[in-house]
Amino acid sequence: MGVPSHGMRETARQLAPFLRPWVPVVSLSKGLEQDSRLRMTQVLEQELTGHPCGVLTGPNLAKEILSGHAAASVIAMDDPVIAEALQDVFANDLFRVYTNPDVIGCEVAGALKNVMAIASGMADGLGTGDNTRSAVITRGLAELTRLGCAMGGQQVTFAGLAGMGDLIATCISPQSRNRYVGEQLGRGRKIDEIIAEMSMVAEGVKTSKVVMELGEEYGVDLPIAEEVHGVVHEGRPAADAYRGLLGRHVRSEMHGMPNS
Amino acid sequence: MGVPSHGMRETARQLAPFLRPWVPVVSLSKGLEQDSRLRMTQVLEQELTGHPCGVLTGPNLAKEILSGHAAASVIAMDDPVIAEALQDVFANDLFRVYTNPDVIGCEVAGALKNVMAIASGMADGLGTGDNTRSAVITRGLAELTRLGCAMGGQQVTFAGLAGMGDLIATCISPQSRNRYVGEQLGRGRKIDEIIAEMSMVAEGVKTSKVVMELGEEYGVDLPIAEEVHGVVHEGRPAADAYRGLLGRHVRSEMHGMPNS
Repeated sequence: MGVPSHGMRETARQLAPFLRPWVPVVSLSKGLEQDSRLRMTQVLEQELTGHPCGVLTGPNLAKEILSGHAAASVIAMDDPVIAEALQDVFANDLFRVYTNPDVIGCEVAGALKNVMAIASGMADGLGTGDNTRSAVITRGLAELTRLGCAMGGQQVTFAGLAGMGDLIATCISPQSRNRYVGEQLGRGRKIDEIIAEMSMVAEGVKTSKVVMELGEEYGVDLPIAEEVHGVVHEGRPAADAYRGLLGRHVRSEMHGMPNS
Repeated sequence: MGVPSHGMRETARQLAPFLRPWVPVVSLSKGLEQDSRLRMTQVLEQELTGHPCGVLTGPNLAKEILSGHAAASVIAMDDPVIAEALQDVFANDLFRVYTNPDVIGCEVAGALKNVMAIASGMADGLGTGDNTRSAVITRGLAELTRLGCAMGGQQVTFAGLAGMGDLIATCISPQSRNRYVGEQLGRGRKIDEIIAEMSMVAEGVKTSKVVMELGEEYGVDLPIAEEVHGVVHEGRPAADAYRGLLGRHVRSEMHGMPNS
């Protein structure tokens, strides 16, 4: 199901009558449903009841895979037997597929990294360099790990390809749409103008709103997502958001880290 | 002490008579001593006995800091009082300094990331793209975390600025000398030729040898470092090393991860 998150429920609903029983359904989408705040496999399970649902995710920029470059991915399903059967369907010499039983962690990581990619892109647009970019990615992973674990994901997933791997690819690649949106915001452009000229969906824009709601629901502090939300949804200038992040008064690196 | 690792002991020895008692000594070096396999603060403690020794490390590409870009760094010392005093010495509005009591983790991460940067550079030189690069950085962090924790470092350090942050900066920046060496190897050039034309030291070349010895000493499997060592010290073509990494028969992503 390679459908943007906002079209997943309706597409699944239309598909339901044509799908034979027992056929597994795999989401390729990296977003959360607005309002319900559901993950894509939760949406699929509601609309395609009885079908085993899973997610295929990781650092998988489509153009590179199309060009024949090697890539690694993760398939996450509750049922390990079906996961291993699908692993053999998707994998080939250039596309390695690992199994992971942590569906929640894989989906949450895939959705949240798009918000961090906007933050990373904002840094690029402001011309802050690779030191700052690396710090944002690092603190961004800590942030999405905190929320993801509160939501039931496993920490080890966030340290793996579906978490850190996908986050890095999305934050550094010129091909990433979410990073592009951030870059344009960093250059001082308005969000409506940026979105209007894009032909594809940047999931992070909508996800940043859902993530703020989830942070409140689970009582998790999300300083980077908060700054992204401020720029994307409240018209705050990206340069201000960056000063906000730099001005945080934290003395010890251990503060707020997942293991502390 | 901004001295390459191979000159640290001799420089400290010459400095010893001129250093007043109680003056703290901070290493900026990211390498390990050949043969002894000691960390730089261990070398300093041997040569400057009685001086409190620590390390300042993180994603700190020097040129960007000189250009006035913001960056974050970590100071690690056994004594938290001195660490906090030095934090105030080094920090300013654009250079944030966090304390971390884990000296071992900070030093091991700083040394090992140079080996991973060679691996990442090799991928760049072979033209494998951002998906592969992100996978190499992710698996590279897992690998250096495994060894670093076996050596007494704390896992949370490897997830922070001194670990993941520095690793990413070194693996993605065109300014990284170790990444450059890897890139040239990826293009098929010989190591002696690459080093001969460089005016600065790429610590990862020597570190890759020490790391293999440490892997054996601590019984830790280091597939990426092993491939780097093969290319750098045994004349193996980079393209072969890459095929070696891709060909590993691992089914589950949890295999060999720090928390599994």
